[in-house]
Amino acid sequence: MAEEKPTAPTAQEQDINPWSVDGGRDANGEIVAIDYEAICRKWNTSVIDQALLERFEKVTGHKPHRWLRRGLFFSHRDFDRILTLHERGEPFFLYTGRGPSSGSLHLGHTIPLQFTKWLQDVFDVPLVFMLTDDEKALFKDNVSFEDAVHFAMENAKDIIALGFDIKKTFIYSDLKYVSGPMLTNAWEFSKLVTFNQVRGAFGFNESTNIGRIFFPAVQCVAAFATSYPEIWKDEPLKERTAEIAKIQCLIPMGIDQDPYFRLLRDNAHRMRYPSPKPALIHSKFLTALQGAGGKMSSSEPNSAIFMDDTQKQIKTKINKYAFSGGQVSIEDHRRLGGNPDVDVSYIYLTYFEEDDAKLEEIYKSYKSGELLTGELKKIAIELLQGYVAQFQEKRKEVTDEVLAAYMKPRRLEWKGNPNPVPAPAPEPGIPIRTKNA
Amino acid sequence: MAEEKPTAPTAQEQDINPWSVDGGRDANGEIVAIDYEAICRKWNTSVIDQALLERFEKVTGHKPHRWLRRGLFFSHRDFDRILTLHERGEPFFLYTGRGPSSGSLHLGHTIPLQFTKWLQDVFDVPLVFMLTDDEKALFKDNVSFEDAVHFAMENAKDIIALGFDIKKTFIYSDLKYVSGPMLTNAWEFSKLVTFNQVRGAFGFNESTNIGRIFFPAVQCVAAFATSYPEIWKDEPLKERTAEIAKIQCLIPMGIDQDPYFRLLRDNAHRMRYPSPKPALIHSKFLTALQGAGGKMSSSEPNSAIFMDDTQKQIKTKINKYAFSGGQVSIEDHRRLGGNPDVDVSYIYLTYFEEDDAKLEEIYKSYKSGELLTGELKKIAIELLQGYVAQFQEKRKEVTDEVLAAYMKPRRLEWKGNPNPVPAPAPEPGIPIRTKNA
Repeated sequence: MAEEKPTAPTAQEQDINPWSVDGGRDANGEIVAIDYEAICRKWNTSVIDQALLERFEKVTGHKPHRWLRRGLFFSHRDFDRILTLHERGEPFFLYTGRGPSSGSLHLGHTIPLQFTKWLQDVFDVPLVFMLTDDEKALFKDNVSFEDAVHFAMENAKDIIALGFDIKKTFIYSDLKYVSGPMLTNAWEFSKLVTFNQVRGAFGFNESTNIGRIFFPAVQCVAAFATSYPEIWKDEPLKERTAEIAKIQCLIPMGIDQDPYFRLLRDNAHRMRYPSPKPALIHSKFLTALQGAGGKMSSSEPNSAIFMDDTQKQIKTKINKYAFSGGQVSIEDHRRLGGNPDVDVSYIYLTYFEEDDAKLEEIYKSYKSGELLTGELKKIAIELLQGYVAQFQEKRKEVTDEVLAAYMKPRRLEWKGNPNPVPAPAPEPGIPIRTKNA
Repeated sequence: MAEEKPTAPTAQEQDINPWSVDGGRDANGEIVAIDYEAICRKWNTSVIDQALLERFEKVTGHKPHRWLRRGLFFSHRDFDRILTLHERGEPFFLYTGRGPSSGSLHLGHTIPLQFTKWLQDVFDVPLVFMLTDDEKALFKDNVSFEDAVHFAMENAKDIIALGFDIKKTFIYSDLKYVSGPMLTNAWEFSKLVTFNQVRGAFGFNESTNIGRIFFPAVQCVAAFATSYPEIWKDEPLKERTAEIAKIQCLIPMGIDQDPYFRLLRDNAHRMRYPSPKPALIHSKFLTALQGAGGKMSSSEPNSAIFMDDTQKQIKTKINKYAFSGGQVSIEDHRRLGGNPDVDVSYIYLTYFEEDDAKLEEIYKSYKSGELLTGELKKIAIELLQGYVAQFQEKRKEVTDEVLAAYMKPRRLEWKGNPNPVPAPAPEPGIPIRTKNA
């Protein structure tokens, strides 16, 4: 009898979509790091470059966040237009969201949220925060809609603990809030999009349930200002209006969510009350403890540090699971040096250590072999313990009453740019840029 | 040059679906009457027979409505189970709906509505009335969602003028009301149904917009009692409950709407809080003025008598357009007799003349040639003028305040069967019939 040969491992392209992120495999079947440049090229987004960061600093008067400086928010669509709006003191608003899950947020979840809070502080604009409990139950066979609402409420408390300003933040559960003008927007948007289009964008097929097929409309119309009549006026508007529809939206998000918003950008001008294409700013994923190619995931507890982990758990997880770029022995490490680029403890420092000089110093000394893996881990452990402890302090203050206050539909308060620069008058003969140019 | 031959007409099967009704064509390309027996066979519904009508009279103490006696409501699913529930004094409720259109209702629209009102009176049960303004805008390219809401409000006034009891009637616009528990039901139901299934049921394809694909879920879950937390208790339930979900629903409808409810009956038991399969009772369509094979249609004004037509317009339309079963000359008519079975004036009498004996007399005298076409038309004109005049009187009383009162979500009041017969105790050894047996 002939011996069966094992199947040869083959290369596999990375697959990034709103419900799963897979960095792909090399020709030997080994997991490879996510290629973010390839995503930018494939999806035709713009890389956040030095010029944009300089303009950001000039327009806002704020040093770019370390996650911008270090390329962790690496890609965008029309973020430059948001800077122009801010420069002129014209209104815009922030929209972000979260698919609620059971238990506490993990470190990776907090990245786009913390960044959104920072954008809210810098621009002083309203933020709408969508908890996609509807989506969660639609895409998870074992999650009921009642469960999903419950998860949403618990997650919202975690989100509030990150420090969003209540005066300019409205948090809502889809299953509780979506009705009236927002549902009308969803229906109208859904009329503009065919099954073929969502199949193309999300890989749906004929066996996909009809809820999932419709859901992108809900996700998309959250970026229309008309969906929130309460936040703009003391007397909420009863009807959608062209004036409110014109308020631009900026969406910070993980790059995996981009397909939803391409659909949105392609169709926003086709609504009865047209909206400008929303601007997007995309983050990379926080690396799993196991290293590049995966992202922290609630469904793999050992891949993640949770915001309710104890100080001891954090220490144990980093020591036990954090993939190391060090050598197998201290002698080898001193001689050959470590590789900070693949070292998960170091990567976490790039997220959470504010001081650029200190970070560079750590990089060099680890690479040279001066800093040992145990020492590097210790630095990461202390930093993350501090971040999580601070969070846990704030989380204790988020009572049901605080939650209800954030989730109450109401007029928000914000100032925008206190010193706007009026838009230059168009020069004669030069056509004014139209909405979708 | 060879002469082109005209294409030979070919037979074409009838096509009945929720958005269009086509009676088909014979081998000569002529429109033929709708074959209702064929629909019953194709869709596997039950014919309403004499035994069922006798049981109805025994259980309710009411003579069956003339539309039941004359087979205009001709088909059902599980209507016998509704009779058993009523017999035992167990709760059920009525659900019907209307896709709102601009302008007044026509005669054909009033048939299922008037019949629903009669069922409500006979059974003394709550009625929920869905105005599918969402569906209307989704399926009509030139109707905006705002237009559809406006049509819904005007149509609702017409509906109220038909005499529904405000204490046990809740009328709602989908675009205004669908949220909370009803939307949760829609999402949960949509999770149970795939694109393939709605493609099969409704003939959707890959170019169908995603709103239309999702919409059947909304239409279906209107038959779940949990969708209306307000109507059952003074303190509306905050969550869906198994107890409320068990309340059975009876849906009177045109036979073209059946595909929605097959989908519903196939999946009602799969909900988190399972509901029994709703019972259905199906009507034929009111024949167009032009005769069999078409139904009255708002988009073909000369096919229909509208509820806001003047007395003179009714007279002119019947005289000018009502297809006649009479002969071409009075002499021929006296000699050969007329054909009441295809005569539209006579068919309208079968709908609106209550007196069976009088109707039979008219049938015989027209068939014998004694009654002339002009005389038959005169009888029909007077009857319809009376029906429409009575409606118009009531319609004047329907102010915006009256409309608001019907559309307010609130506890309904009803009595059901005042003298219920307790269900017999199950005999030992005989298994109790389960919900979906």
